[in-house]
Amino acid sequence: MKLDKLIGERYKEKPADAMIDSHALMVRGGYIKQVAGGIFSSYTILRRITQKIERIIREEMDAIDGQEVLFPVVMPASLWQESGRYESVGKELLRFTDRNDTPMVLGMTHEEASVQLVKEYGQTYTKYPFMIYQIQTKFRDEARPRAGLIRVREFTMKDAYSFHTSHEDLEAYYERCYHAYERIFRRAGLPEVISVASDSGMMGGKVAHEFILLTPVGEDTIVTCGACDYRANMEAAENIVINAESSRLEPLEKVRTPGAKTIEEVCGYLGIPVEKACKAVVYQKAATGGYVVVCLRGDLEANETKIRNYLRDEIYPAAITGESGLAAGFLGPINLSGAEILFDSSLKGTGGLCCGANEDEFHYTGFQIGRDIGEVEYHDLAKVIEGGLCPKCGHPALIISRGIEVGNIFQLGDKYANAMNMRYTDESGVMRCPTMGCYGIGVGRLAASVCEAHHDQYGPIWPMSIAPWQVQICCVRADDVKVREFADELYGKLQKEGIEVIYDDRIVSAGVMFSDADLLGVPVRVIVSPRNMKDDCCEIVTRDKTVSRKAKLGEVVSSVMELVKTMNNIQ
Amino acid sequence: MKLDKLIGERYKEKPADAMIDSHALMVRGGYIKQVAGGIFSSYTILRRITQKIERIIREEMDAIDGQEVLFPVVMPASLWQESGRYESVGKELLRFTDRNDTPMVLGMTHEEASVQLVKEYGQTYTKYPFMIYQIQTKFRDEARPRAGLIRVREFTMKDAYSFHTSHEDLEAYYERCYHAYERIFRRAGLPEVISVASDSGMMGGKVAHEFILLTPVGEDTIVTCGACDYRANMEAAENIVINAESSRLEPLEKVRTPGAKTIEEVCGYLGIPVEKACKAVVYQKAATGGYVVVCLRGDLEANETKIRNYLRDEIYPAAITGESGLAAGFLGPINLSGAEILFDSSLKGTGGLCCGANEDEFHYTGFQIGRDIGEVEYHDLAKVIEGGLCPKCGHPALIISRGIEVGNIFQLGDKYANAMNMRYTDESGVMRCPTMGCYGIGVGRLAASVCEAHHDQYGPIWPMSIAPWQVQICCVRADDVKVREFADELYGKLQKEGIEVIYDDRIVSAGVMFSDADLLGVPVRVIVSPRNMKDDCCEIVTRDKTVSRKAKLGEVVSSVMELVKTMNNIQ
Repeated sequence: MKLDKLIGERYKEKPADAMIDSHALMVRGGYIKQVAGGIFSSYTILRRITQKIERIIREEMDAIDGQEVLFPVVMPASLWQESGRYESVGKELLRFTDRNDTPMVLGMTHEEASVQLVKEYGQTYTKYPFMIYQIQTKFRDEARPRAGLIRVREFTMKDAYSFHTSHEDLEAYYERCYHAYERIFRRAGLPEVISVASDSGMMGGKVAHEFILLTPVGEDTIVTCGACDYRANMEAAENIVINAESSRLEPLEKVRTPGAKTIEEVCGYLGIPVEKACKAVVYQKAATGGYVVVCLRGDLEANETKIRNYLRDEIYPAAITGESGLAAGFLGPINLSGAEILFDSSLKGTGGLCCGANEDEFHYTGFQIGRDIGEVEYHDLAKVIEGGLCPKCGHPALIISRGIEVGNIFQLGDKYANAMNMRYTDESGVMRCPTMGCYGIGVGRLAASVCEAHHDQYGPIWPMSIAPWQVQICCVRADDVKVREFADELYGKLQKEGIEVIYDDRIVSAGVMFSDADLLGVPVRVIVSPRNMKDDCCEIVTRDKTVSRKAKLGEVVSSVMELVKTMNNIQ
Repeated sequence: MKLDKLIGERYKEKPADAMIDSHALMVRGGYIKQVAGGIFSSYTILRRITQKIERIIREEMDAIDGQEVLFPVVMPASLWQESGRYESVGKELLRFTDRNDTPMVLGMTHEEASVQLVKEYGQTYTKYPFMIYQIQTKFRDEARPRAGLIRVREFTMKDAYSFHTSHEDLEAYYERCYHAYERIFRRAGLPEVISVASDSGMMGGKVAHEFILLTPVGEDTIVTCGACDYRANMEAAENIVINAESSRLEPLEKVRTPGAKTIEEVCGYLGIPVEKACKAVVYQKAATGGYVVVCLRGDLEANETKIRNYLRDEIYPAAITGESGLAAGFLGPINLSGAEILFDSSLKGTGGLCCGANEDEFHYTGFQIGRDIGEVEYHDLAKVIEGGLCPKCGHPALIISRGIEVGNIFQLGDKYANAMNMRYTDESGVMRCPTMGCYGIGVGRLAASVCEAHHDQYGPIWPMSIAPWQVQICCVRADDVKVREFADELYGKLQKEGIEVIYDDRIVSAGVMFSDADLLGVPVRVIVSPRNMKDDCCEIVTRDKTVSRKAKLGEVVSSVMELVKTMNNIQ
């Protein structure tokens, strides 16, 4: 098509609210327009990209025997009540009532809908395994949508659900899907995506992986090992702490710590390193409001996901009231009442600790758990730290990075099928509950991630496989008859050969033309200009600057086609 | 794919709630599953059909220079407040609040979103005309969803919006789109769709057409002329009534009509035909609650759309209270107070009428409007009737039919652009408001309409262009080695030739196999069976029964390919 007719405006200015490059470039290039916080319309240029991503996803899902279906965006609350998630999921699940006052929800994921759809089909073991998927609009009422298409409220997602008669079969299929995901990201131009073990969160189940594009602007915290191939996200990364046996037992002493409340203040006042403190972090359970005090080594942070999983309950940071009997800022495990107390593994083998005395302005020193309060159970409840011990190879080589989650896969187990009473008859006529996996990819987020990974200061550098067009013709000086004639002809010829061409024949300066082309990010650019024509040639350059050559006029078409083919094969 | 692996159940029983055949067959054939009233999930078989429909629509929209975009499903109420529709549209617009208590709506149409998207792009006349479209999920909170996919609450729709600098340009583009719609319906296998002039309803604007599949199970009432090509829907059809001049003036008399309230009762009691009655129908205005009495000839029905358009106000049938001062059942134009009064054209030239006396148990006879209450204005406010006068050719040849609306196109005018303050600079530097058209097609409803138009008692008869698969192989007696070998090979060969094949190699009776095939409605069926194999041939039959022949084993592939090609060309 002609660029002049492409709907959408391009801007020089970086939008004020854009914190990351992909957001800024997608606004500047006329890819998206915000309609409300975290809600965007897509212009044609982005729709062309997402359609190509969707095609890649469909091909790979079909290749692993997926069958495309379509679930509704609006679902009755009753479906989510069956699984228990209507109550357990927070405000990100948008709840409302229809004209008959029936409670409804906007789909943010479709486990319930998938079980509802295949409940009758999956009544005998012979039907298994099977997988269904859809590409559909979802809504998640995020508290803080940000970063353009990276964290939005409304988004297009491919979500897939597989059903199995055994855990082994689920695992085998999970593996197939894992590899399909690797192919999808590679084909979409993001071979650098890595997979990390993840926590399954509200989804239920045990084994889960996230597919992550490592980038400093990512929202997820990723733990990798510099010495082996260990990879997990922060929620799931096991924290290993080995404390040197404390050789000398210090006596327990209560000391006054005037004005010192934080771990740093107390340790500073007492002149000890923070590792010698027993930090106490307080949460409340969402269901009962009951207090939970988590004790861990002073240099570590609590991992709320781990605490949540251990308690099997939703928690939130506590609001300590006067009636609670808790001495905020001076909490410690000795003589603590009014709260459940948990000990992180990082306290195992410690001694000579400082800890709160549950009394305003007082701490203990010389605290040794076993001696002073008896043996306790230790659980992994803390976040790992940079340079921490790798749970796989044992080396102190953990690296903490940031990343964008572009996909995730979960072994759900029977949580949904069981809650919704889905059953099949096995070989021996026994009724059993199937086990499930689920597999998600956000289409718009993937497009934005490709842009985030592949751009320069002038615009996105789209890979050939998902580029909005394969070739851009820049007709510099379209008012020159010879130039225009050749460019027009080239446009026709390339299209005839099945090449997707965007043709810029506007009468604008070469500067405007090239900066617009940079924002469109089309992989191959052909420059037709009076100077080139005089030399009987065109310039052919790639957006990533790896190719820049002149081709004789008679060879431009074949040269471009060859280049497009080569660039397609790279992926 | 193998039928054995196709997800979805097929049933013999007609579902109790299915009032029309397409609904029953789509449930019985495993095409859809209800999730809530008017909300369905689609199985793979329907998804394959709708994807083909979507492809046809995309091709035709692109062919008239449409650019595909994507608007959000969830929009801020503020966008709909700008156009005024947040207040004017009824409960079918689903309103709710998000987690921050911001009022939001679910998109049922996207005029506002389209203006928001192109407001900056369309600032100079050189950009015009242009058209954007999307294929996206919509939600319309229908009071009475019914008839399967014909009237649902959630649906996938193609909606398009065009922008123009003159009414002439809009009309020219409207014409192009009109023809694109004809091509879409023809290509999707519904050449019998007709266009009718329609009322533009809540959309604003004047000229509008609906594309209608005539069928007794349709919800829309369509008026056609048996003598010319006049076509309109009931809302828009002009009602022409010519009353013979009443030669003799009867005196106005007040008569007691004990117990007679309806027109039929009163006329029966008085021994006069209903055409000699002046019927009074009462409405209330939605905004003020004020009463409106519409007077029309006793044999006609009021057309609420016409009344609404005349009043430029929403109305609903009145609830007559004691305080209103209106004598329910005895209303008439003489000495009526407490209500606005409108006269339908059907009363023009009448005399000797009976009408209510605005007093319980009393009517007038001999009523003649001009003489008894003075000259009044007449407006077209009634529905046309079967055999009525055609407004185009004047013959008493109007035919009233039922139909399903499968698409609609509207000349919107500047209603939205103006309300949302969209402006462009024209050639002479003057700021002007663009004019718009909008163009919709419901994808699921189109699929259901094709089924409604093309089915028999055993199942749908899908046209080749949108069929879920092109060919079905029925391997009767798959336990016979020779039969299976040939069928397996045929399956491979046809797929290799690019034919979409569904392969039934289940070990089930021929009866089960054929009735399942009928429900799938695949256009070409190849039957491989021991009996056929003995004759060294296969049976090739079409679902519509127009072809039934035997082909030698060596010629099956070429014969099937030829047939698929021919059937593709028919459309």
